[in-house]
Amino acid sequence: MNEHYFDDLEIGDRFKSEPLNVTEKEVIEFAHKFDPQMFHLNQKAAERTLFKGLVASGWHTAALTMRLFVQTLNFEAAIGLGVDELRWPNAVRPGDVLTVETEILDLRPSRSKPGYGIIRLRNVTTNQHGQIVQTMLASALVPRRVDGGDHKTTDN
Amino acid sequence: MNEHYFDDLEIGDRFKSEPLNVTEKEVIEFAHKFDPQMFHLNQKAAERTLFKGLVASGWHTAALTMRLFVQTLNFEAAIGLGVDELRWPNAVRPGDVLTVETEILDLRPSRSKPGYGIIRLRNVTTNQHGQIVQTMLASALVPRRVDGGDHKTTDN
Repeated sequence: MNEHYFDDLEIGDRFKSEPLNVTEKEVIEFAHKFDPQMFHLNQKAAERTLFKGLVASGWHTAALTMRLFVQTLNFEAAIGLGVDELRWPNAVRPGDVLTVETEILDLRPSRSKPGYGIIRLRNVTTNQHGQIVQTMLASALVPRRVDGGDHKTTDN
Repeated sequence: MNEHYFDDLEIGDRFKSEPLNVTEKEVIEFAHKFDPQMFHLNQKAAERTLFKGLVASGWHTAALTMRLFVQTLNFEAAIGLGVDELRWPNAVRPGDVLTVETEILDLRPSRSKPGYGIIRLRNVTTNQHGQIVQTMLASALVPRRVDGGDHKTTDN
């Protein structure tokens, strides 16, 4: 994937990631480190919970989404400013294959950092059945092209 | 820490976690898996970025916050329903010591799952200098006491 810069983007642009397989080993390893709850740690114990089986931590889903986003958009840097409306409408289970679709919602040059622009985006993470497992809105600071050969003004 | 149930909580209750040390090895390991950007991966390269040094991924800070929250509140289960206003006002750096303060903002019994209640909370993550490194609002489904010996009604 080509490296992207702020100046390459248009509101409404959409990007789709490569697929990523989620393994049981990774789900359990993440849970041990960051979210040690029964339904994330052990298949047998998880069967007796609301989830009726092992599920990934929502924070694991969020981290995997970040990985796919970084790989797909391939900015020189994407500095997260904030996230809103982070939701997990369906659980992620071992064996799931995730893809992330990114939509550019807004674009504005940074006032305090002239070499950067601020993008507002929606990331939707979907499993192999087409079920949405995560949605979020985010803002990030990303670099502009150094040559200034772009179609957006810097003076607002 | 004692196990907590929905029925033990009052709006306005605050809980403070134990401290947690963030190591360079963990910051780099998380970044390789989930957020492979220069300022999260390599100290030398990170010195040439906006951060002037290695910083943890915001998703790493979020995951560490979850770990401290789970350890502190110690619910039998805490199922995340959603997160809002996730912000990272200061970067987390190797050697930082993080604590999480949780404030209970709202409490209501679940209508669809009688054995559970829904808590609304604010988590504020602070470093050893008292600087806030993350804030967020979250909603989670947590179990009620089975014996029903509580002070809140279930019929709304």
